[in-house]
Amino acid sequence: MDIFAFNPETDLELEKVIAASPANVWRCLTEPALVEQWFSPKPWQAHDVVLEPRPGGAFHTPMRGPNGEAMDEGPGCILIAEPNQLLAFTDAMRPGFHPTGSGFMTGVYLLSPTEAGTKVTARALHANPEARAQHDEMGFFEGWGTAMDQLAAVAKTL
Amino acid sequence: MDIFAFNPETDLELEKVIAASPANVWRCLTEPALVEQWFSPKPWQAHDVVLEPRPGGAFHTPMRGPNGEAMDEGPGCILIAEPNQLLAFTDAMRPGFHPTGSGFMTGVYLLSPTEAGTKVTARALHANPEARAQHDEMGFFEGWGTAMDQLAAVAKTL
Repeated sequence: MDIFAFNPETDLELEKVIAASPANVWRCLTEPALVEQWFSPKPWQAHDVVLEPRPGGAFHTPMRGPNGEAMDEGPGCILIAEPNQLLAFTDAMRPGFHPTGSGFMTGVYLLSPTEAGTKVTARALHANPEARAQHDEMGFFEGWGTAMDQLAAVAKTL
Repeated sequence: MDIFAFNPETDLELEKVIAASPANVWRCLTEPALVEQWFSPKPWQAHDVVLEPRPGGAFHTPMRGPNGEAMDEGPGCILIAEPNQLLAFTDAMRPGFHPTGSGFMTGVYLLSPTEAGTKVTARALHANPEARAQHDEMGFFEGWGTAMDQLAAVAKTL
């Protein structure tokens, strides 16, 4: 199911085929102990992850850097969780769909089985082309790409 | 199902028992031709309503006033649509869960069957107490209350 129409003017996307089953990729996306292993490009690391894979559930991924730097934007909201198929979350809402009054993006992971394992399509949906450009300049492709490689490494261990 | 935790500091709520089945109340909430009959307190009226009752679907209710005044904030996004039970939408996202970068509220209609018909709980969830107060001063209780009375009148005709 792909209800997230991709708009190249406002959105960013990357794809990777991972040598693991959709079920194991799903575990990596939704089990906090696994998320902490791959979500943040090393040497940064996510910690104390809270992830409730249901509409309205919490999505909280505080991160810390190698010198004790902290990054925590507070909890976001899961929008859709279809096991082994689709996970979407946003920082435009807190858990329970409470709007934040702002919000930078909606993140989407689409999974589909392939002969080699699972094709993962990761998307960041933004409000406008300026936000897309900002995310691109912040290093979307390198950051999410590295995270996706880390996800693949974790999935292979399951 | 009530996944929308009510927070009295940020949210507003009103309830009404409507002498109609949950199925007919659901029709009033989701069929554009019916929504146009009740959604806007008269003499204002919603028109050209687009409502796709599925996660990520469009929720668009342009309104016009008795002297040709127009009010149109553009399309919002359906968050959850559980037939005969729960409808939630927000102006913090456009269809397809694209964040708008802002957003005033999430609207929720919870339906539950009663002996007399259907109890409808309508909630407006806001980012903070200031937004709640603003909505209260804008006339939430009178506006949504009148709309709910109009909904009840439409539901009885089905």
